[in-house]
Amino acid sequence: MPADSPVAQVEALFFDVFGTLMNWRDSVAREAERALAPLGHKLDWLGFADAWRGEYQPGMEEVRSGRIPFSKLDVLHRRNLERILPRFGLTGLSDDVLRDLNLAWHRLDAWPDVPPGLVRLKRKFKLAPCSNGNIALMVDLARRNSLPWDAILGSEIAGDYKPKPRVYFAACEALGLPPERCMMVAAHSRDLAAASKCGLRTAHIARVNEYGPGTGEKAPTVPVDIAGSDLMDVADKLGA
Amino acid sequence: MPADSPVAQVEALFFDVFGTLMNWRDSVAREAERALAPLGHKLDWLGFADAWRGEYQPGMEEVRSGRIPFSKLDVLHRRNLERILPRFGLTGLSDDVLRDLNLAWHRLDAWPDVPPGLVRLKRKFKLAPCSNGNIALMVDLARRNSLPWDAILGSEIAGDYKPKPRVYFAACEALGLPPERCMMVAAHSRDLAAASKCGLRTAHIARVNEYGPGTGEKAPTVPVDIAGSDLMDVADKLGA
Repeated sequence: MPADSPVAQVEALFFDVFGTLMNWRDSVAREAERALAPLGHKLDWLGFADAWRGEYQPGMEEVRSGRIPFSKLDVLHRRNLERILPRFGLTGLSDDVLRDLNLAWHRLDAWPDVPPGLVRLKRKFKLAPCSNGNIALMVDLARRNSLPWDAILGSEIAGDYKPKPRVYFAACEALGLPPERCMMVAAHSRDLAAASKCGLRTAHIARVNEYGPGTGEKAPTVPVDIAGSDLMDVADKLGA
Repeated sequence: MPADSPVAQVEALFFDVFGTLMNWRDSVAREAERALAPLGHKLDWLGFADAWRGEYQPGMEEVRSGRIPFSKLDVLHRRNLERILPRFGLTGLSDDVLRDLNLAWHRLDAWPDVPPGLVRLKRKFKLAPCSNGNIALMVDLARRNSLPWDAILGSEIAGDYKPKPRVYFAACEALGLPPERCMMVAAHSRDLAAASKCGLRTAHIARVNEYGPGTGEKAPTVPVDIAGSDLMDVADKLGA
């Protein structure tokens, strides 16, 4: 990369987490089966994961729009869970079971390129999630998957949800960097478009199997600084 | 430690940083000499570090008392620096020099037991600084000293300064833990007394040379759950 490239000024990388770093769909399906199958329930586990994730944007929209005050994603996940239970004929689950089930999102597995990719990128950049997940959730995912974060940034320190501008600005401010020295890395063009509007650099990762085989964005639908097939490819393109 | 000990319930350790983990005095003296000696200045470098640190509590008190809105420690450090310059006959320093000098606090060295102690403690506990230092400052110290934090907590996520209760409560809430499952680790009894009042467990570390040989607290002056000579000793006592 030429030294006068805008990307050469980047000092910190911010990461979307669900989908970009984590295979949430297979992980939530597995965790739901682990929690519910021993109680005699037989579901379309992937369908259950999709339905739960389907409530994700509407749940956050209530916060973004100001209809409800900021609530951590753990709280929204629980509300969203209770909304979908009837659709799967799940009634009478104890609070212990619901609490355990809600922690499915703390037990996601990373895509295989993520742990080695972050280790490589950390040599050159400061690394932080800029996720809608709350801090406790991010900490559990990092411990489970050995993610070497420098800090946990994102919705909880901003008090709002992406793609609201304040979430990206809060991440930059926390590291004391102007937006143009920060790069948002995500598998979702909407996230990157919002970050770019705030002045951040952007990198797209093609997670083509996010919602099942061949369902994810194969390429960005908005202009980005870098597009990679996975984190190792992004590391190559950033000279890390 | 017996399984019914209150300390056996602890899942997260929060750390004071300046003094408890970092030898700020020798480090700031060294950084001041590095920045100013080439410009022809000859000072009592340790005295300069002490004077700068002497403005620390009064600077934060302006925020705690509500006289000024919350400002990051980097901002208070810069104000405090400008207050002490005349006492050392330092005039006409350029903004570049002042900015570099202010980063002395980002370039502190840890006491030698800290990196190996934290690696040991991380196997059993979630670890986070609960410091009055801001996030960018904590990130730089962690990268410099290889501190394996799970998250960066403390004043910036609370919007206030220790020993105000909200700083301890914000740290517990960020990890989704009740205070009694969290332990504050510090070399200063005032910090531990405040944490204990919020319901956290407490561990004291004797940093007897914090302000120069034999000047630090040799033992806590308040009741604590654990008192150790250094982080390895605390790890022993926590069974980590």
